[in-house]
Amino acid sequence: MSDIVTAGLLVIGDEILSGRTKDKNIGFIAEYLTNLGIDLKEVRVVSDDEGDIIAALDALRHRYTYVFTTGGIGPTHDDITADSIAKAFGVGIDHHPEVVARFRERWSEQELNEARLRMARIPDGAELIQSATILAPGFKLGNVIVMAGVPSIMQAMMDIVAPKLKSGVRMLSETVRANAREGDIGGPLREIAKAHPDTIIGSYPFTDEDQKPNTHLVVRSRDADKLAAAMAAVKEMLAGLNVTR
Amino acid sequence: MSDIVTAGLLVIGDEILSGRTKDKNIGFIAEYLTNLGIDLKEVRVVSDDEGDIIAALDALRHRYTYVFTTGGIGPTHDDITADSIAKAFGVGIDHHPEVVARFRERWSEQELNEARLRMARIPDGAELIQSATILAPGFKLGNVIVMAGVPSIMQAMMDIVAPKLKSGVRMLSETVRANAREGDIGGPLREIAKAHPDTIIGSYPFTDEDQKPNTHLVVRSRDADKLAAAMAAVKEMLAGLNVTR
Repeated sequence: MSDIVTAGLLVIGDEILSGRTKDKNIGFIAEYLTNLGIDLKEVRVVSDDEGDIIAALDALRHRYTYVFTTGGIGPTHDDITADSIAKAFGVGIDHHPEVVARFRERWSEQELNEARLRMARIPDGAELIQSATILAPGFKLGNVIVMAGVPSIMQAMMDIVAPKLKSGVRMLSETVRANAREGDIGGPLREIAKAHPDTIIGSYPFTDEDQKPNTHLVVRSRDADKLAAAMAAVKEMLAGLNVTR
Repeated sequence: MSDIVTAGLLVIGDEILSGRTKDKNIGFIAEYLTNLGIDLKEVRVVSDDEGDIIAALDALRHRYTYVFTTGGIGPTHDDITADSIAKAFGVGIDHHPEVVARFRERWSEQELNEARLRMARIPDGAELIQSATILAPGFKLGNVIVMAGVPSIMQAMMDIVAPKLKSGVRMLSETVRANAREGDIGGPLREIAKAHPDTIIGSYPFTDEDQKPNTHLVVRSRDADKLAAAMAAVKEMLAGLNVTR
């Protein structure tokens, strides 16, 4: 059995649920984790509400190898992610001396007000996720990785944390363009999926450049040979199709 | 007390979790529901797995006024949304005669294979969401609204179902550009938020056209007077700021 590493993602923020801000992090993190060999199994989006954050965090952190969070680590009253995570883990939270020291280099005494100092609040025992270009750090506590909501900062944090993550046997993926309508291949495709149980076969309709209905078929597996066998069966099925579009 | 109508959103599909497809539905539905006066409280993204779909659906449908789902209603073996929903509700599922009749008008006997007929599988007691331009219908069963994953079709389905939804007192929203860094206003903003409990005040940093750090402040409330009072306090605070950027 190969070691499978899983993840949940928790997106925190009223602005996503109201539609004011369109999330750009889910797609990025999904693709990033897939490339690392980590299976993203579930995403949840919750509001800036302590009870909602803790409930979702607890559901995810006990179920998956890692939980990634985005959002809610800024300087304002609606940024409650760090405190919620400390509460979920039952640990204290205080201004982290190393972060405060960096803030003192960056800001004058007048500027380093209570709001900015909030960004130095880190749960006890957490490991900082920081670099010279990241102002307010993220952190890793247990299996939970807490990141910024601003995409560019979140992406910088992912690059820092990625090398430290346990990664699994990577999911391999191959795509073929069917040049057929999804409805014409659904039957034989089901048989192929049944005959190749260690693969995952996905079917994604799209409109091609000739404005015709077309389909991408994606075969995924952690085993290269099994993937190749299923893909061969898919291609054989497509070659034998006798349909018009 | 005003009647508050809530919603959960369940996005179904391996392709979103693998990063292959970037979701465009969450942001659209969030904004659409906000405009209807329905509060989107939570979003979950799960894979094409019956157990995962049912667990998420049950968590959401008992908690919120409505649950919207996207994805998994096509003709292939990985399209298992309708069957999962029938199972969650404990009702039967079969080919819906009205849908089959429409399919017969559209497709020849050879084309109307088992795969395409799958798209006519509708749980018992569900109400169809369909129009002349929608091929495979969505449906509404209890408080669950099942829609396509393809954004253009999902959007057409939302337009059909929206007039039938109970809508709440609409959340009003006003935005002001702070011309200040988030860290400089976090303290006074917290006091304003505390003093105006029936409003929700959000703070969203951005880089403005002069490449300076700037902040949008959003005040939301269902009560126009309370919103106006909180926004007045925010603007007074901003006018009294003595900070440089």
